[in-house]
Amino acid sequence: MAKKNAFYAQSGGVTAVINASACGVIETARNHKDKIGKVYAGRNGIIGALTEDLIDTTKESAKAIAALRTTPSGAFGSCRFKLKSLEQNKREYERLIEVFKAHNIGYFFYNGGGDSADTCYKVSQLSETMGYPVQAIHVPKTVDNDLPITDCCPGFGSVAKYIAVSTLEASFDVRSMAKTSTKVFVLEVMGRHAGWIAAAGGLAEEQGIPVVILFPEIEFDQKKFLAKVSAMVEKHGYCSVVVSEGCHYPDGKFLAEQGTRDAFGHAQLGGAAPVVANMVKEALGHKFHWAVADYLQRAARHIASKTDVEQAYALGKSAVELALKGQNAVMPTVERISDKPYKWKVGVAPLSKVANVEKFMPRNFITPDGFGITEKCRAYLTPLIKGEDYPPYKDGLPQYVQLKNIAVAKKLAEFKI
Amino acid sequence: MAKKNAFYAQSGGVTAVINASACGVIETARNHKDKIGKVYAGRNGIIGALTEDLIDTTKESAKAIAALRTTPSGAFGSCRFKLKSLEQNKREYERLIEVFKAHNIGYFFYNGGGDSADTCYKVSQLSETMGYPVQAIHVPKTVDNDLPITDCCPGFGSVAKYIAVSTLEASFDVRSMAKTSTKVFVLEVMGRHAGWIAAAGGLAEEQGIPVVILFPEIEFDQKKFLAKVSAMVEKHGYCSVVVSEGCHYPDGKFLAEQGTRDAFGHAQLGGAAPVVANMVKEALGHKFHWAVADYLQRAARHIASKTDVEQAYALGKSAVELALKGQNAVMPTVERISDKPYKWKVGVAPLSKVANVEKFMPRNFITPDGFGITEKCRAYLTPLIKGEDYPPYKDGLPQYVQLKNIAVAKKLAEFKI
Repeated sequence: MAKKNAFYAQSGGVTAVINASACGVIETARNHKDKIGKVYAGRNGIIGALTEDLIDTTKESAKAIAALRTTPSGAFGSCRFKLKSLEQNKREYERLIEVFKAHNIGYFFYNGGGDSADTCYKVSQLSETMGYPVQAIHVPKTVDNDLPITDCCPGFGSVAKYIAVSTLEASFDVRSMAKTSTKVFVLEVMGRHAGWIAAAGGLAEEQGIPVVILFPEIEFDQKKFLAKVSAMVEKHGYCSVVVSEGCHYPDGKFLAEQGTRDAFGHAQLGGAAPVVANMVKEALGHKFHWAVADYLQRAARHIASKTDVEQAYALGKSAVELALKGQNAVMPTVERISDKPYKWKVGVAPLSKVANVEKFMPRNFITPDGFGITEKCRAYLTPLIKGEDYPPYKDGLPQYVQLKNIAVAKKLAEFKI
Repeated sequence: MAKKNAFYAQSGGVTAVINASACGVIETARNHKDKIGKVYAGRNGIIGALTEDLIDTTKESAKAIAALRTTPSGAFGSCRFKLKSLEQNKREYERLIEVFKAHNIGYFFYNGGGDSADTCYKVSQLSETMGYPVQAIHVPKTVDNDLPITDCCPGFGSVAKYIAVSTLEASFDVRSMAKTSTKVFVLEVMGRHAGWIAAAGGLAEEQGIPVVILFPEIEFDQKKFLAKVSAMVEKHGYCSVVVSEGCHYPDGKFLAEQGTRDAFGHAQLGGAAPVVANMVKEALGHKFHWAVADYLQRAARHIASKTDVEQAYALGKSAVELALKGQNAVMPTVERISDKPYKWKVGVAPLSKVANVEKFMPRNFITPDGFGITEKCRAYLTPLIKGEDYPPYKDGLPQYVQLKNIAVAKKLAEFKI
């Protein structure tokens, strides 16, 4: 096998640990210099490939690459851009091949969620459909935890830990205030269709906190919800509500919509928390506080889960190893061996079975009344938030690395997306 | 001096480190058993004194009390309740004396902010006005950092660290997304009248982040604000906005009001972030994300500042020492000796000069354009967020202590507030 270069890019919403996967990919490739040439990173995801805006990662020191492991966000820039099908947009695929050829790229590592798995799958078919030999491996990443086959997705464990810790802390706060002031605290969390992140708020129950969860998987029933909150406040003097941004009425209408849509056509949500809080105030008269975690939750590297960081790195590493074994159109996965003690290993899934499939919370992870998590869910979640993996600090702030991101000289004509 | 018992209570909004002050008070009192009898904590602040709902802290193990140092929120419950003046409500003062007498209380430690300092000051005058000998010492606590005389207030350093870290992390996130998606991230922070918390967001600039800050001290000018954001996005491709909940128009109207008021008559705010975000979207067309940190910021013991924890403990300890020296109507303070290296010592302030005085950001801590912090402000803030002081964890969650909070047997008739 002639020595080829590799392309790596980050896609979709970034996470606290996507750079740990980048670290895994780059460090592993550097350990196989006999087989893999340079790793070129796409500036802003696949757009970097289309526009020939490649970053030469060989210009970064070993120390800088190692520091990616403790740095949140996408070090090379991410994008929200989904390749159309070959029939709909042959021009873009031809351009990709042109860029790959110009820079001798034979490996394509794409680090993203469901939509990105679809892009990666399309690229993996280029050998067959367009006659250009490229091995495309998807590195899973999504805070939403909604990819199929893999037991969990890198990025999720850390956001789950953030939400569990934040729910616990804010609940301690509202409990302190409940006698004369705030009785209900509402936290809005991410998760358009799947309630995995919201479920993590339920882990605060471990320490006796009354938590009411509003999942996207359960149609919102205002009357039942208010009765639940009322009962909780009656019993405990206070309660916390964790509401998923994707929580919706039976007709599909979200509790709150900002009205804007992202590049994939998804509604951009936000603002369910104040809606829920006001509902409680009007019906029950309880004073409330609400928070919307938004980016804070998925960027919170300072409270990342050790399990998550290790898995993010391991799957980046495995992606390169799968490529070296000649694989194409696959994604390394987390396979759970046991809950307690938590044991897992790296598996592999065909991209054809990953792309465009969403994994929702199983109904038996949600309590019969629809407002809490079951023991089964708790057993699933707990290992994923386990362990702390603190970044280094200087003068009170985490020392996150910023790469030089030096561009590779362009060889081709400009391309308009 | 005959041996008297002590009363300790927590008041107002709780913080990540108010329990560290409680720990300082109780551990120090336990070290002076020859002079101080039992420490009784008021359940839910001063309300516990009025209703004779006292918690016997001697029932708690040394281990449990030590764990208060790493536990956020108010372990004995807090309250939003301000004593009226003696002329307006003599009945409550008489009741306090009745309870103090019944339980042989000679020391009154009140842990709170500006309103609580006023309550503490009123109690300190009971010796003179009502002939009952009691020494009242105020232990400062407020995330708002708006108490006078003291260089800073316990509780502030940790919320400042949380906001600085969160702004940094979310800004890394928006920078990753800016090419094809979100360009402006808006974070709403606490601070009704003083912009200290918002200022902490400016510390993210240390790592090259473009941050626009909206202070309550600077009247909001929409045109200037939008021009600033536009220039930042033009230059950096993205920017972060940190908006104080107290940010308001020249006529005093807040950017967003929920319309409800707390027990002190303050408007309960929230929702400035979506207002600002939509403003940016409409005027500049930039895609946005927004977060409201609310309780998450002041409860975030997981990312507490070491400086803050140490000061919170030290001032609790000093309060007891001041009492043992026979002082009354005072508050221990932080006196800064130098910025770099950061050195400080405990000072003391008369409560007559603390009660009902608010300390705002000096104008020279804010840049001339009103949207940033100066080097002077940075030199002030940096030592306050310095150092990490992580709580212990188990199964991925911080192990926060929950006390037994056993009530002292009542001796008096019921009292209606």
